[in-house]
Amino acid sequence: MNETTITAQPNTPFIDVVREFDATPAQVYRAWTDPDLIPQWLGPHGGTMELIEYDVTPGGRYRYIHRDTDGEHGFRGVFHTVETNKQIVQTFQYDGWPNDVSLETLTFEDLGGRTRVHTHAVYPSVESRDGMIASGMETGVRDSMARLDEVLAR
Amino acid sequence: MNETTITAQPNTPFIDVVREFDATPAQVYRAWTDPDLIPQWLGPHGGTMELIEYDVTPGGRYRYIHRDTDGEHGFRGVFHTVETNKQIVQTFQYDGWPNDVSLETLTFEDLGGRTRVHTHAVYPSVESRDGMIASGMETGVRDSMARLDEVLAR
Repeated sequence: MNETTITAQPNTPFIDVVREFDATPAQVYRAWTDPDLIPQWLGPHGGTMELIEYDVTPGGRYRYIHRDTDGEHGFRGVFHTVETNKQIVQTFQYDGWPNDVSLETLTFEDLGGRTRVHTHAVYPSVESRDGMIASGMETGVRDSMARLDEVLAR
Repeated sequence: MNETTITAQPNTPFIDVVREFDATPAQVYRAWTDPDLIPQWLGPHGGTMELIEYDVTPGGRYRYIHRDTDGEHGFRGVFHTVETNKQIVQTFQYDGWPNDVSLETLTFEDLGGRTRVHTHAVYPSVESRDGMIASGMETGVRDSMARLDEVLAR
């Protein structure tokens, strides 16, 4: 069982998510960035995800909407750095909080057949970061990682 | 005389730059984002600036090179939010430090004929922010703001 570690030290604007997968960096990176596969794992259990735009190149944009019985939530961002199978630097914004844009650095580390994905996110303020944690994002992250395991196992 | 205030609180990854200009938000925003005007003010005294790419739309990219007697320094980023005369959210990277991408929020505040520009930058770590401060960026920022005064006075 692979565990998802979410770290948010008090009085910092950072959130770190670390997760290992039983697959190579190329396999994990593909599942992470293939527009056909992303809707199969990104988001919490029990909802659906519509990927409206996803152009994983420097300057490319992404946009998606999660829908569940409570309603819908839109997210968007742009890609700054794209190094295939290695690293992505991207912005992230929830439509409901347009003033809290964060910057995420995703690193795909080769553990020899296994892969460690480290997401380091930085928010424009500690309050903004705390708001994201309070929103319950942890459930969405843990669910997504478990669903990604299933996609990789196919 | 308009003063440039640069704030970098210890143990945070933030840099805040606040500067007022004797011009309207529309005038300041135009000088800030017009590819013909940017090379006339962005950068320290005594160098030249080549604007290679500048597409101020969400997902657009920018890239420029500063040259002086010490050599040349390249910078690049992508735009996340563009609200004309009001706000820009963009990434920022110095070629020499590819792992220290920062996110900048620029706000153009109308003071009634005058304008306050607030740049809030957040770095991926406190160490990364400290490195930017130690690089002498303050001189470049103060010089740029003084040169922008001259562009606006024309």
